[in-house]
Amino acid sequence: MIRVGIVGGTGYTGVELLRLLARHPEVQIASITSRGDAGTDVTQMFPNLRGRLRLRFEDPATANLKSCDAVFFATPNGVAMEQAPPLLDAGVRVIDLAADYRISDVADWSRWYGMQHASPEWVGKAVYGLPEMNRAAIRNARLVANPGCYPTAVQLGFMPLLERGLVELHHLVADAKSGVSGAGRKAEVATLFAEASDNFKAYAVPGHRHLPEIRQGLSAMAGEPVGLTFVPHLTPMIRGIHATLYARIRSEADLQALFAERYRDEPFVDVLPAGSHPDTRSVRAANTCRIAVHRPQGGEVVVVLAVIDNLVKGAAGQAVQNLNIMFGLPETEGLQQIAVLP
Amino acid sequence: MIRVGIVGGTGYTGVELLRLLARHPEVQIASITSRGDAGTDVTQMFPNLRGRLRLRFEDPATANLKSCDAVFFATPNGVAMEQAPPLLDAGVRVIDLAADYRISDVADWSRWYGMQHASPEWVGKAVYGLPEMNRAAIRNARLVANPGCYPTAVQLGFMPLLERGLVELHHLVADAKSGVSGAGRKAEVATLFAEASDNFKAYAVPGHRHLPEIRQGLSAMAGEPVGLTFVPHLTPMIRGIHATLYARIRSEADLQALFAERYRDEPFVDVLPAGSHPDTRSVRAANTCRIAVHRPQGGEVVVVLAVIDNLVKGAAGQAVQNLNIMFGLPETEGLQQIAVLP
Amino acid sequence: MIRVGIVGGTGYTGVELLRLLARHPEVQIASITSRGDAGTDVTQMFPNLRGRLRLRFEDPATANLKSCDAVFFATPNGVAMEQAPPLLDAGVRVIDLAADYRISDVADWSRWYGMQHASPEWVGKAVYGLPEMNRAAIRNARLVANPGCYPTAVQLGFMPLLERGLVELHHLVADAKSGVSGAGRKAEVATLFAEASDNFKAYAVPGHRHLPEIRQGLSAMAGEPVGLTFVPHLTPMIRGIHATLYARIRSEADLQALFAERYRDEPFVDVLPAGSHPDTRSVRAANTCRIAVHRPQGGEVVVVLAVIDNLVKGAAGQAVQNLNIMFGLPETEGLQQIAVLP
Amino acid sequence: MIRVGIVGGTGYTGVELLRLLARHPEVQIASITSRGDAGTDVTQMFPNLRGRLRLRFEDPATANLKSCDAVFFATPNGVAMEQAPPLLDAGVRVIDLAADYRISDVADWSRWYGMQHASPEWVGKAVYGLPEMNRAAIRNARLVANPGCYPTAVQLGFMPLLERGLVELHHLVADAKSGVSGAGRKAEVATLFAEASDNFKAYAVPGHRHLPEIRQGLSAMAGEPVGLTFVPHLTPMIRGIHATLYARIRSEADLQALFAERYRDEPFVDVLPAGSHPDTRSVRAANTCRIAVHRPQGGEVVVVLAVIDNLVKGAAGQAVQNLNIMFGLPETEGLQQIAVLP
Repeated sequence: MIRVGIVGGTGYTGVELLRLLARHPEVQIASITSRGDAGTDVTQMFPNLRGRLRLRFEDPATANLKSCDAVFFATPNGVAMEQAPPLLDAGVRVIDLAADYRISDVADWSRWYGMQHASPEWVGKAVYGLPEMNRAAIRNARLVANPGCYPTAVQLGFMPLLERGLVELHHLVADAKSGVSGAGRKAEVATLFAEASDNFKAYAVPGHRHLPEIRQGLSAMAGEPVGLTFVPHLTPMIRGIHATLYARIRSEADLQALFAERYRDEPFVDVLPAGSHPDTRSVRAANTCRIAVHRPQGGEVVVVLAVIDNLVKGAAGQAVQNLNIMFGLPETEGLQQIAVLP
Repeated sequence: MIRVGIVGGTGYTGVELLRLLARHPEVQIASITSRGDAGTDVTQMFPNLRGRLRLRFEDPATANLKSCDAVFFATPNGVAMEQAPPLLDAGVRVIDLAADYRISDVADWSRWYGMQHASPEWVGKAVYGLPEMNRAAIRNARLVANPGCYPTAVQLGFMPLLERGLVELHHLVADAKSGVSGAGRKAEVATLFAEASDNFKAYAVPGHRHLPEIRQGLSAMAGEPVGLTFVPHLTPMIRGIHATLYARIRSEADLQALFAERYRDEPFVDVLPAGSHPDTRSVRAANTCRIAVHRPQGGEVVVVLAVIDNLVKGAAGQAVQNLNIMFGLPETEGLQQIAVLP
Repeated sequence: MIRVGIVGGTGYTGVELLRLLARHPEVQIASITSRGDAGTDVTQMFPNLRGRLRLRFEDPATANLKSCDAVFFATPNGVAMEQAPPLLDAGVRVIDLAADYRISDVADWSRWYGMQHASPEWVGKAVYGLPEMNRAAIRNARLVANPGCYPTAVQLGFMPLLERGLVELHHLVADAKSGVSGAGRKAEVATLFAEASDNFKAYAVPGHRHLPEIRQGLSAMAGEPVGLTFVPHLTPMIRGIHATLYARIRSEADLQALFAERYRDEPFVDVLPAGSHPDTRSVRAANTCRIAVHRPQGGEVVVVLAVIDNLVKGAAGQAVQNLNIMFGLPETEGLQQIAVLP
Repeated sequence: MIRVGIVGGTGYTGVELLRLLARHPEVQIASITSRGDAGTDVTQMFPNLRGRLRLRFEDPATANLKSCDAVFFATPNGVAMEQAPPLLDAGVRVIDLAADYRISDVADWSRWYGMQHASPEWVGKAVYGLPEMNRAAIRNARLVANPGCYPTAVQLGFMPLLERGLVELHHLVADAKSGVSGAGRKAEVATLFAEASDNFKAYAVPGHRHLPEIRQGLSAMAGEPVGLTFVPHLTPMIRGIHATLYARIRSEADLQALFAERYRDEPFVDVLPAGSHPDTRSVRAANTCRIAVHRPQGGEVVVVLAVIDNLVKGAAGQAVQNLNIMFGLPETEGLQQIAVLP
């Protein structure tokens, strides 16, 4: 059994980790911390876990996280960079679900996240936890930077095209739509039901923090810098991301075959038959990314549609997938839930 | 392995059976039928099952259902009463998710359902499949009448009170609210998104078909006929039933202790701490009924709040629970999914 | 032109007052105040008003409200009781949309609202602003206590029955369902989209603040104290209240004719034909209450269904209706919007 | 008073026309037809109109539409092309809300709509009813082809850029999101609440019927053929279209000033301040298009965000606007509703 700890378990990423880990056959949840809710039974906050988990939130000051084999940080940005290094030094392996270690250019990270990095020496040692790109490195990683939700969908959608150099790189467009849980379990007016329901809007068009993360990943795939316009939108649904990706083709290829081939052995990427349109609900509560590739009217533009559940493949599920890889378990262990439809 | 068949698998009850049975360790889905979609891969209709199930809808005329150990009918009312008897005669055990065998008074059934019963001889042999009431009889049943969704929530909510004779029986009120999936996967204007979203209404106030079923169950618990006003409402959510039950107390008792005691050993009924208000999402996609009992201002009226997922504990999950009981499996086998929240 | 002021215009009641008053032909909005947003253009907060209203939030300390003919308080409970008396003394007529002056028993009010009343001398002079009950008194009122949203729907639904003494009074049940805007425009976790969407729950079953207000009104109609069980529920829609009311009949009457007759001359109460089920969307954004009356299976129980838009007939619309009555305008002036369906 | 008729009033466009026209001070609704619902009171189908409209659906065979000054066709594609010409010949002015007369290339129209055109001689005489583009021609039109919902939003968003030749024309991208009412009031599985709620998907990526209409309009603005990739998406909201438009800049300009200037005198186009993100709800139930223009990170790509209510500015409201123009009324007559928020 792998003993795991969770730092900051009161958000949506936290409860989703608990849902997945509570039934993971090789994992024991040793500790979950929360500064504000120490002492509270987790089922009081998350009644879906009643009868399935006996656990109280612990004060992070006293929780014995160093005895864990692995610790997940499900905290706001800026926490893991402070608290992960002592654990790492003690030999604990860390998976950070926040953004602290995702951007290899520390100065760039500071600009986008508006803070100084507290442990820049660990940035270079962190492995970006997108298994479909970095599986081998993840296996031996001490510190995994779990990808953001938008970056997961956008990178998986563009990957086959960029790796093969098939598209023009200067004007990629990623028009992405997210369910409201992506904004987290924070009391804010903008994400109230009465504000976000029966409504649709773009946000952060001048620049969203996931832009540098996506650009870094796409540039790595392409082997050169890419130009990307990324526009996120808030959609009146709880879970789900739908990325609609546009690129201009510069070399001919059988795109359907390319995608099918690229992801043939991937347990969590499903390339749909030609002509398909994936629903976000087809991955609801499952660790799957479903992708369709189109070339409207046989023209010069390729359109890729990629859907994930932002809390699973876009966060907690991918973190568990990374845990499985790091500890030599079957990659799908604890992640075989079938999407809930309808 | 238990070989099961599903008759009529293209509705929401059908896909939910598939989601549950596909991961049930003791079950093999031998056949699923659909008159209209014979030959179609089930994953074409239900892409959430891609990679998890290799199955095509079969023509009911040619499907070899008699080789199954058990057959589920996930059909409209009036189908099982025609097609179940030959299977029963061949030794197949049948679980009917429709209403054909739920009402023991055949004349009453005909009045409410507007058709003659095709196999009244089987009505008396059928066991009403509410495990918390009839577990012993279900064990040996050849034919199980799986309860309706509203009846499951209302009966579980009233049961402890009625069994103990604690409330006045002539004016019970069940005000019930259902998600829209309860109306099924049928093309109808009234359940279009643009009609049912951002809207709330009562329906069938003059008389809903679940009324005689509930009344029959409550009367059995009370040992005498009960008077019940049942008002169902359509709620803009996909899954979930919330029953709000009202009764006048005629004998004093510690209601919280009564409920806790009654359901202590039930794996799928969870009595919440005093003062609680269950959310429907706390049981979303799980086979659980959560119940809270209140006595506002210490007055004469008891208010019970009971929630279920109409497609799971209110249909497919309860059917699998019945299958487990019938075949001597652990009752929770294949039903340990944790509710999806948020 | 009637010069009106609005105290506290940054909530949903405030923006709804603005939507209605901006097109009211006899009203000029002289001032709108907000402590926190003084100086901000109202259209920055509420872009639906762009091009329709030139107005900035003013600091309440400097706003010249005393020059207004009427002032609306769209503030949290406890503000009007402090700030209304000086205005009243200056001859300004006041409509309070909060609860400060709704309960005539000041001690009872203090118990439910958890504060001392700052101007108990005005409680007795306030007129409860339900026009269908108190039209004559409203005409000359200096201070109108605008009813709560639940109380409006529940009282209009029970009124014909209670005024005529047709039902048993000790066990009335009001099972009410509200859209999430009823909780206001406050940053709170419980009303986030990801919490309240695709979910349904009861709340405040032990006792909701609208209970004493409703009980007071029903008792006045009945001429004696009534026993009421009131259970509110949170429904995943933005606007709308649906009250489902249950009472036991003690004297026979033609209920449909009774309701039709009682509300024949009411411009904002619409009694539906026998057998109807009102949708909340049939009153969305309109100042209408639609009511249907049922007697299931011809039994002893009457079921009344009443719907309103909680922000219009349940708040801002009713406030404008009261203004019209107070100033001798046609009662429907500025309130003839047709409900938005779908 | 202008006497108007409505052919086919049982869909969402029909009820929206009724909502707007019932309060239009210069219009009298003389007749509304429906083949299937002749004889039914319109308020039976649309209870929001109770008390506001006394009208029964008439059989189209007997309705005296020729006595009308103007007739709206709110019918499926292919009806107006048969039934409009006799009315036109009788001197009635016609506004077709369907697609029959929108595409000037009849062969192209036939390809996309899969039918022969029954009155190609009228195609050339029809005026495309986008007032911001064709106001002068609309004034004298006998037949107005009211634009589609997507085409309205996309054309208004691109217009200032294309008219001035500021962007590269070969790779325009329009990523558009629509509420479910855009699919109409037809019983279909795909638009059921349980299918479309809490879900997001693209559709018709290989080619949507609005593509040729948009391309025709954009090419006219640009003065040369444009290359456009158009991807529509289904969004879980009732009303609203959000178009996110991407183009590469080829000539520098102050884009904010350009948009502000272009639409300065347009009563129904509102250019938001720089940095804004329009919500669809800011135009809910109103005849307004709100637009924001962005240039992320000061790069080469311009992103335009345009929102409308698909049933108002995208259908019925624009039809009334066209009526006003055709009959010399103030363009905003009957269209001054303020958007309903929240």
